[in-house]
Amino acid sequence: MSNGLNIQKTSSVSSARRGVLKTAHGEIQTPFFMPIATKGAVKTLSSLDMEKLGAEILLSNTYHLYLKPGIDVIRAFGGLHKLMDWHGPILTDSGGYQVFSLAERRKITEEGAEFASHIDGSKHMLTPEKSMEIQQALGSDIVMVLDECTPPHYDQETLNTSVDRTVRWAQRSKEHFEQNLGSSNNPGAMLFGINQGATNVDLRIKHANDLKQIGFDGYAIGGLSVGEPFEDSCRVLDALHPVLPADKPRYFMGGAKPHEIVAYVQRGIDMMDCVLPSRNARHGLLYRFVHDDLTKPDFYETIHITNAKFANDQTPLVTPVIPSEGEESAEQINELSRYTYGYLHHLFDVQEMLGYRLATLINIKFYLELMARIRKGIEEGVL
Amino acid sequence: MSNGLNIQKTSSVSSARRGVLKTAHGEIQTPFFMPIATKGAVKTLSSLDMEKLGAEILLSNTYHLYLKPGIDVIRAFGGLHKLMDWHGPILTDSGGYQVFSLAERRKITEEGAEFASHIDGSKHMLTPEKSMEIQQALGSDIVMVLDECTPPHYDQETLNTSVDRTVRWAQRSKEHFEQNLGSSNNPGAMLFGINQGATNVDLRIKHANDLKQIGFDGYAIGGLSVGEPFEDSCRVLDALHPVLPADKPRYFMGGAKPHEIVAYVQRGIDMMDCVLPSRNARHGLLYRFVHDDLTKPDFYETIHITNAKFANDQTPLVTPVIPSEGEESAEQINELSRYTYGYLHHLFDVQEMLGYRLATLINIKFYLELMARIRKGIEEGVL
Repeated sequence: MSNGLNIQKTSSVSSARRGVLKTAHGEIQTPFFMPIATKGAVKTLSSLDMEKLGAEILLSNTYHLYLKPGIDVIRAFGGLHKLMDWHGPILTDSGGYQVFSLAERRKITEEGAEFASHIDGSKHMLTPEKSMEIQQALGSDIVMVLDECTPPHYDQETLNTSVDRTVRWAQRSKEHFEQNLGSSNNPGAMLFGINQGATNVDLRIKHANDLKQIGFDGYAIGGLSVGEPFEDSCRVLDALHPVLPADKPRYFMGGAKPHEIVAYVQRGIDMMDCVLPSRNARHGLLYRFVHDDLTKPDFYETIHITNAKFANDQTPLVTPVIPSEGEESAEQINELSRYTYGYLHHLFDVQEMLGYRLATLINIKFYLELMARIRKGIEEGVL
Repeated sequence: MSNGLNIQKTSSVSSARRGVLKTAHGEIQTPFFMPIATKGAVKTLSSLDMEKLGAEILLSNTYHLYLKPGIDVIRAFGGLHKLMDWHGPILTDSGGYQVFSLAERRKITEEGAEFASHIDGSKHMLTPEKSMEIQQALGSDIVMVLDECTPPHYDQETLNTSVDRTVRWAQRSKEHFEQNLGSSNNPGAMLFGINQGATNVDLRIKHANDLKQIGFDGYAIGGLSVGEPFEDSCRVLDALHPVLPADKPRYFMGGAKPHEIVAYVQRGIDMMDCVLPSRNARHGLLYRFVHDDLTKPDFYETIHITNAKFANDQTPLVTPVIPSEGEESAEQINELSRYTYGYLHHLFDVQEMLGYRLATLINIKFYLELMARIRKGIEEGVL
């Protein structure tokens, strides 16, 4: 079987799909969630931590890694896998999103996006070809085309212009990607197109058809989770479902709360990323399950560990488990089960880094466990 | 054998001693180094990390833990061991040093030290009795008497007054400690006296005799490493060597560079603590061995991982080892051996917390390895 998606079951109660995505660095059970190793590390954690948690793929940010450590260091190491000693697959974004959200003095032309680094003000030009060059040096398993992420408040004309350009950028991305695949740091890499069009369903469908015409290994839905209502995201996904090729992986880009992830999976999404579990962890907000029925959005709750009520709480952060064969995350769970809510409260109170680390482990573990429950739900026909 | 020191070998080439210190939470091979878990965690690390590194004892700070989480929370948890889930012995200081170095508006009277918290300005009174009460709530295995740490620039009269008061505080500490031992969170705790007198050798000896008169389970040498020359510390230790009881543990309090540790051990010191390995780690300064001859002060070097020359360095941070039975630290070593100097350089460059964690693991590992080499050197008759 070549790299790509193998759908094993399609839900009869929703558009959810259960399968396996094969990549150059191993297989991933779908639907899955990608923890974000922005600059080559999931904040506070190591690649060994991620292995122990049972994460099957990480997402890293091209913009950040292009600026630091830079493409020369990445090349010297032979790619990002070796730099961070991560043995599983890596997806990298195109760099476009950060150019639009972080960089300074940006100017978009047909050629690409000119910008000044947010670190030192140095000038750079991100073209579709440059994005491919960086991602192929990184050795990503899943490479994303350069796109313009359009905010929901664009007027119709600007939106049309942007989406048309994104099609041309996708075409150029693919050409450069294919020309250089053999000599890249990952000849088994896949290339995903990115669907844009804000919340304009007609434009989304037109754009999806344009991307299909070019042909990609997978299709991402970008430009959502940027401030528009959750219902609009669902509407876009419902409209795209019959349009996107059924046999290719579908990736919802960007932030999603746990109950939103369930809703997106039910609309045919196979892949998600989200900075919320790790970012929230560092602010002391923890996720935990309340009940087992994922179809009800109240299946989880969030708690603020800094709340005074946790000061004396001697409950372990997670329930200890007896490791069984093949249960990779047992060791990490049992590490977390040593420590109590009261201790974590104290660590946050005195701003010990260990607190941010433990909280991040807990939240990533929650998101990975959520995906395992979702996969089980599809298998059992309840999702 | 009751709790205390069992000396197994005395060096024939120096005053160094090799032995075992038995505590209520297990035995410690002497001479040993205590990593500092200031507020109930070695900064960036967990108690599990310390176990894996093979640390046999931790030091925590009474002043910090008294202010946060406070004595009520400590009592609710049944002591510091349970709060931080550390199964080995803990030494706590008296709180005095931080009152003198950190707290505000402090006023010293015969009764004790009045101070305002550096966190919220709240007023507190640290007496010898209060220090014992806090440390016995913490459940420390080695409790330190309240003393006044005298800086080297005190005039002779002030110094005499201070040292005389420290003797009376030591007496009061011992009385309170013994009266409340049975009902404390650690009835097997030991109490150490603290020798003061700055660099005045006669005063040091007089004070040591006064402390011996009272009688303690161990003797600390305080008030050094506070700015005086290294040679003065050696002079004080040489003078105290014949005075302190030979069968009791001797603890050099405060910072020491690796070659200074060797010198102190050669002057009969059994125990040391030092914030340098962990603090320096967070600033990117790493220790590593250069050669095996500990009698030459250049047996180690420090490197700055932020130096540009490390950007492309693909050398592993530590050499991988094949775990052998009883080698507790093999797992942690092999974790560190996954990552390279180049990756650590990058993590520091982009200020990822993982970098501070890895650097701290490396430096604590170095100090623990140094002590293992020192113990071996005494056993082999070369130190």
